[in-house]
Amino acid sequence: MQAPRTIALDAMGGDHGPSVVVSGAAQSLIRYPALDFVLFGDQAAIKEQLRSYPDLAARSRVVHTDSVVAMHDKPSQALRRGKGSSMWLSIDAVANGEAHVVVSAGNTGALMAMSKLILRPMAAIERPAIAALWPTVKSECIVLDVGANIGADARQLSDFAVMGAAMARALFQIERPSVGLLNVGVEEVKGMDEVKKAHAWLKETEGLPFRYHGFVEGDQIGQGIVDIVVVEGFAGNIALKTAEGTARQMGQYLRDAMRRTWTSRLGALLARGGFKILRERMDPRRVNGGTFLGLNGITIKSHGGTDALGFASAIDLGYEMAGSGLIERLAADLEAFHRRIGESIAG
Amino acid sequence: MQAPRTIALDAMGGDHGPSVVVSGAAQSLIRYPALDFVLFGDQAAIKEQLRSYPDLAARSRVVHTDSVVAMHDKPSQALRRGKGSSMWLSIDAVANGEAHVVVSAGNTGALMAMSKLILRPMAAIERPAIAALWPTVKSECIVLDVGANIGADARQLSDFAVMGAAMARALFQIERPSVGLLNVGVEEVKGMDEVKKAHAWLKETEGLPFRYHGFVEGDQIGQGIVDIVVVEGFAGNIALKTAEGTARQMGQYLRDAMRRTWTSRLGALLARGGFKILRERMDPRRVNGGTFLGLNGITIKSHGGTDALGFASAIDLGYEMAGSGLIERLAADLEAFHRRIGESIAG
Repeated sequence: MQAPRTIALDAMGGDHGPSVVVSGAAQSLIRYPALDFVLFGDQAAIKEQLRSYPDLAARSRVVHTDSVVAMHDKPSQALRRGKGSSMWLSIDAVANGEAHVVVSAGNTGALMAMSKLILRPMAAIERPAIAALWPTVKSECIVLDVGANIGADARQLSDFAVMGAAMARALFQIERPSVGLLNVGVEEVKGMDEVKKAHAWLKETEGLPFRYHGFVEGDQIGQGIVDIVVVEGFAGNIALKTAEGTARQMGQYLRDAMRRTWTSRLGALLARGGFKILRERMDPRRVNGGTFLGLNGITIKSHGGTDALGFASAIDLGYEMAGSGLIERLAADLEAFHRRIGESIAG
Repeated sequence: MQAPRTIALDAMGGDHGPSVVVSGAAQSLIRYPALDFVLFGDQAAIKEQLRSYPDLAARSRVVHTDSVVAMHDKPSQALRRGKGSSMWLSIDAVANGEAHVVVSAGNTGALMAMSKLILRPMAAIERPAIAALWPTVKSECIVLDVGANIGADARQLSDFAVMGAAMARALFQIERPSVGLLNVGVEEVKGMDEVKKAHAWLKETEGLPFRYHGFVEGDQIGQGIVDIVVVEGFAGNIALKTAEGTARQMGQYLRDAMRRTWTSRLGALLARGGFKILRERMDPRRVNGGTFLGLNGITIKSHGGTDALGFASAIDLGYEMAGSGLIERLAADLEAFHRRIGESIAG
């Protein structure tokens, strides 16, 4: 039997609170019977939901708190007033070893601020990053940073590569995943100094815990030519949102086109099996969950407005990240990496 | 009868040279009979192509040169060795008033460097920008900068708004188009100072030559909620490429899904009219052409690998930009804008 993997759940996070969190957990438990849960929040509301899922109830512990971080709270407010909240306690469960991973649909800024305060950045890390799973024509890749910070210097970009590689190892079971540095195709423009410097370091340093592919451009992310795409958080967040928007736009175009004539409508009806496959493949709930990397513990941020199916995807992600000794391996990788880069620059 | 609008064509630019350039011009001339052309490049090759299009030949002047800027030439090389090349001469035709607009499928870096040298930045402009047309669910919007420069301060971002508005006025016939500033949703993160400062300026300044909408996020570009989206060039280029890649990826998903079963294939066959509409709507050749703004003359950059249909789109864009006294109006707008922003900051 597999060792249990415990997920701490912020049951009050997101737009829908316990109803989505509990039924999402129930879906994940069917896929991964080794899961168990600690749920933080309004005990009565959580237990009410758990009554519909006896198998889940048997593998869940509920910790009551009245305090909740609101979706519109600013990070600074959340830090001042949020101690003892469901968000705080669920992160703290990872810090004190009660849980392997925390999943919350609460607001991103507050969740990052609290995660930094409670879990603390890893010794070698200047900045944590948020990593997103990105569907590709082949399977999936990891893109980071998608918005933890704006801007990144060469050292931080290089660290993102090591962090993304650790995540890829856990999720994709690849020992030496490939890394691309997101760049623009225009040559000899000013201002890319840090991206160029990171490129030079990664190209010249030997014994990296990943294969460095070189530069990639925005249209290559979805082609799946690398396992990890590294970019600073402003451009990364804009790329992620733009891809989501474009996918929705294409869906709209498709629906419009199929409604134009009777033969198109009839054809679309006949092809509904194909359209169902397409819809599932494009369903943004399938890849829900931003992973905070670079802290002494894993926080998964679910979309705030998602439903149970989407929240279950975030828990699934947490499950896969929980089983791999990722933090210990990452700490060792980072230490070796910084030593090698130091030698590479000195040499 | 309409006054002629003269386009200077770099007949040797792009992967295919005169064959694509000439047949693209022939397509545009059918749509816009007021067009005429000056073509720069290998006279024999151009005249050979023109023989197939007598109507176009009657409205074209050919200027011979042996010198060509190669697709892989660096901007600095192109500037050193490119004087007298087809690219150089076609830009020069705008500078000396022989043509209203220049269209080239040559390499972006060389084209920008030469355009800056020959056309010169407008007096009030620190940095030119490249503006792209972006298809939306409603129609189209303009996004700039998509890669002329990396990074932009508040002043430069504000200038992009004024430049985009001038272009929107010419293309969309809207007197006061709407402008959004591309941003990320995460609050209280560091490093967005210049974006925030530009936001404050645009919000507080009265009498702008556009309506300032506020911040927009990446997934809102394709929704068409604003006419112009302003962003610095690194994130803008990545957003554009990412959207192109995602559209292709969705097309691939759709084809895969329709091939799965016999009923899907049959349905897709029946719905082929709808799929044809969809394909046309998603065709990247329909919106080919990056516009260099902020110089004393308009340069349009076509994709290097496009075909005649795509090159014709770039010429169509040049036609619409040529007829509007855009440069004069933009110069006046910029002067008024800088005065108002100065007052707004002082006041």
